[in-house]
Amino acid sequence: MFNEELLVKGELAKEAAVCLAALSTVLKDQALLAMASALEEQEELILTANEQDVLVAKKQGMSTALLDRLTLTAARIKDMAEGLRAIAALQDPVGQVEEMWKGAQDIEIGRVRVPLGVIGIIYEARPNVTADAAGLCLKSGNAVILKGGSDALHSNKAITKVIAEAAENVGLPKGSIQLIENTSREVVSQLMKMNEYLDVLIPRGGAGLIRSVIQNATVPVIQTGIGNCHVYVDSEADLKMAEEIVLNAKIQRPGVCNALETLLVHEKVASEFLPQVAARLLELGVELRGDAVTQELVPQAKAASEEDYKTEFLDLVLAVKVVGSLDEAIKHIRCYGTQHSEAIVTESYSKARIFLQSIDAAAVYVNASTRFTDGFQFGYGAEIGISTQKLHARGPMGLKELTTIKHIIYGQGQVRK
Amino acid sequence: MFNEELLVKGELAKEAAVCLAALSTVLKDQALLAMASALEEQEELILTANEQDVLVAKKQGMSTALLDRLTLTAARIKDMAEGLRAIAALQDPVGQVEEMWKGAQDIEIGRVRVPLGVIGIIYEARPNVTADAAGLCLKSGNAVILKGGSDALHSNKAITKVIAEAAENVGLPKGSIQLIENTSREVVSQLMKMNEYLDVLIPRGGAGLIRSVIQNATVPVIQTGIGNCHVYVDSEADLKMAEEIVLNAKIQRPGVCNALETLLVHEKVASEFLPQVAARLLELGVELRGDAVTQELVPQAKAASEEDYKTEFLDLVLAVKVVGSLDEAIKHIRCYGTQHSEAIVTESYSKARIFLQSIDAAAVYVNASTRFTDGFQFGYGAEIGISTQKLHARGPMGLKELTTIKHIIYGQGQVRK
Repeated sequence: MFNEELLVKGELAKEAAVCLAALSTVLKDQALLAMASALEEQEELILTANEQDVLVAKKQGMSTALLDRLTLTAARIKDMAEGLRAIAALQDPVGQVEEMWKGAQDIEIGRVRVPLGVIGIIYEARPNVTADAAGLCLKSGNAVILKGGSDALHSNKAITKVIAEAAENVGLPKGSIQLIENTSREVVSQLMKMNEYLDVLIPRGGAGLIRSVIQNATVPVIQTGIGNCHVYVDSEADLKMAEEIVLNAKIQRPGVCNALETLLVHEKVASEFLPQVAARLLELGVELRGDAVTQELVPQAKAASEEDYKTEFLDLVLAVKVVGSLDEAIKHIRCYGTQHSEAIVTESYSKARIFLQSIDAAAVYVNASTRFTDGFQFGYGAEIGISTQKLHARGPMGLKELTTIKHIIYGQGQVRK
Repeated sequence: MFNEELLVKGELAKEAAVCLAALSTVLKDQALLAMASALEEQEELILTANEQDVLVAKKQGMSTALLDRLTLTAARIKDMAEGLRAIAALQDPVGQVEEMWKGAQDIEIGRVRVPLGVIGIIYEARPNVTADAAGLCLKSGNAVILKGGSDALHSNKAITKVIAEAAENVGLPKGSIQLIENTSREVVSQLMKMNEYLDVLIPRGGAGLIRSVIQNATVPVIQTGIGNCHVYVDSEADLKMAEEIVLNAKIQRPGVCNALETLLVHEKVASEFLPQVAARLLELGVELRGDAVTQELVPQAKAASEEDYKTEFLDLVLAVKVVGSLDEAIKHIRCYGTQHSEAIVTESYSKARIFLQSIDAAAVYVNASTRFTDGFQFGYGAEIGISTQKLHARGPMGLKELTTIKHIIYGQGQVRK
C-alpha cells in the first residue's frame, strides 16, 4: 500500500490534471503571473524558511558549492518570479494540431498536443527548481508532484505554499502544484511506482539520483543530464577557432552537463595545438590529465587513467587524448561518451559529414561549443531538463516535451471493411 | 550477471546497430526483399519446424484459438513474405530532417531522424510476428532482439534463421536479427534489465505479459495494446449510423484491442436504439451484459457487474450502460477506459467538440468505428503495435516510431557568452 500522503496527493493531482487539460491559456498565464507576484510579495516568508535549511546544512557541514545552490536571496527570488513571467509569455503547446490527414475511407485524422497528465519531478538541493518546474508543468497543462531534497524541505514547502495558493486564488484546481513533504527513501521509492497516478517521472540531479530512479521506477522515466562531452580537434581544424571552443566548453561553466570533459586532438596538430591551449587552460586553473603523447607535449599534465575518460568531472579537470584519425576519435566517443553533446572542429566538409552521421548523441556539433545544448540557447524559451535517452525526447526539453498527442478522428459513419 | 546467450547476442546487436544506422536505404530494401524470397524458398523448413510446435501444443491441450494463431501454412508464409516486401516499399524514416532553425548566435540546429539502436520485442504465440517485427526494425535501421513464446520456439528459430541468413548474404551485419532461444522466466527477466544493450523494449501480447514487462523492466518500455474501448451513442445521434458503427466495432474482429467492449447509450434514445441494435448483436452471437435499464429494454441481456465495465473481453461479449448525459458518458470512460480508442456518435457540433476535448485517449472518434485505430488504416503502411502510453508514441506505431532524433548543429566557431 502507498503512503497516505502519496495517495491523497496522487488522487488530488489526477483530478486536477483533468481540469488543467481543458484550461484556457489566458487562465494559465494569469496563474503564472499571480505566482510570480506572490513570490515577490512573500519574499520574507521564503527567506526565513530558507534560513532554517541553510542553518541545518551548515551544521551538517554541507560543501560551499552545495550551500551556494541551497541559499536563496531576494535577487534569486526575483529571478524565480521573472522565470515564471517568461513562461507565461511562451506559446501554449496544448491544442496545437501538428498534422491532419486522411486515412482509410477518408476519415480525417489529426494529431493534437495534449498534456501528459501528472508529472513527478524528483530533484535535489536547488529550491528554485520548485517554482521553475511547477511553472513549466502548469503552462503545459499538467499537474505536478514535486519531490525535492530533504536539505531544502523548508524552502520548498514555503515556495510551494506561496505559488500553489496564488494559482488557486486565480481559479486553478487544488492539487495542480503539490510537494511531497515526507522525503524518506521508502516514500520516494513508492512514488516511483505510482503508475496509476503519475504519467511520467523526471529526475533532475546527479548521476546517483538518476540511476536510482531508472532502477526503481515502474512509472515511465525521462532520463536527464549526464554528459561526458567531447571536443575533437581535427587535423584540418582552424586551430584558433578550436582553442576558443575548447576553452569555452571547459571553462564557461564547468559544473554543468554540456561542459567539455575530454579533449581529443589529431596527432598531426597535437604538437602545435596542445601546448598552446594547455597554457591557457592551466592558467585558468584547469587540471589536465592526458595520455603519454599529451604528457610529452604538456609536461604539467598528469597521467590519465581509463577511469578519467569515463568520468563526468563537472569541475576544472580535463582529460586529453591524442588520436591517430577521425575514426579513432569516433570510436573513443562511442566507447566513453554518454550521448549528450559531442563536437568536431574541422574545416573538412567530408570529415564534418562523417562525424555528424557517425556520432549518436542528443546534440552533435561542427565548429561550435558544446555549451549550446540548452533549451534557451536552442530557442525554446524554457527548459525542464536535457534528455539523454532516446524515447519521447532527446536533448533540451521545453514545453512541447511536457505534452503528448492524441488522435482526433472525424468521420461520417465510416466502418471498417 | 547476465545469461551467456543474452550477453553474446546483446554485444552482437550493439555492434550491428552502429553499422545499421549508417546503412543505405537501397541495401536495407535489398535485404528485406531477400528475406521475403528466402521465406518462400525455405517454406518446407519453416512448416516442418512449425509442425513440431503444433504437435506439442496439441498434446498440451492448447485452445483452438491459440492453436490457430500458432499454426503456419504456405499461405501464411506467403503473407509474411508479402509483408516484408510491403515494408521495403515504404519510405525510409532515417535521415529525414524534421526541422532546421537558427538558435543563439545563429547556430543552425536540425532535428534528424535516427534509429533507436537495439530494439527488444517480447511477444507470444504468433510466429508471424518474428518476420514482421524484424522487417520493421531493419527498415528503420535498428538491430532487433526477438523473444517469442516458448510454444512457438521451433517456428521462431526456423524463421529467424532463414531471414537472418538472407539479410547477412546481402551484406547486413551479423547480429542485425537475433532470437533469444532460452525462453525461461529468469532469462526474460534479465533481458528486461539489459539497459546497456537495449534502447527500448516493446511487449506485444496479452495484458499479463505487458504488466509483467512494465513491472520488471528497467529498459524503457513502449506499452502496447490493452483496449477497453467505448462507443457512446448520444441523444442526437443518427441511430442508423450508430447501429452500423456499434456492430462494426464489436463484430468485425472481436479479439483485437480496438474492438468495442462497452456501449454507452443516452437515455433519451435508449428505448428506440437498444432493442434494435441488441436484436442484431444477439443474432450474431454476442452476449449482452447491461445495467437495469438495459435489461428492461433487452430482456436477453444479463446483468452487468462492476467488473464487466472494467473488462477487455476480446470476445463476443458486450457490456451496455444507459447514461443520463454526455457528461456521465465521459465520466464512465474516464473511469473505466484504458485510453485506447473511444467514440461518440452524434450530430451535435457542440457535443462532438466536448467529447474530443474531454476524452484523453490515443484515438478519439466522432461518427466512425473504433476499429480504425491501426497503422494501416491510419496510412502508415505498417504497424509495430499500438501504444497506449503517453511517452514517445501514442496510438498506432509505424516506422517513424521506431526512430528517435538527434540534433545536428552547424557553427562557424560560436562559443557561449
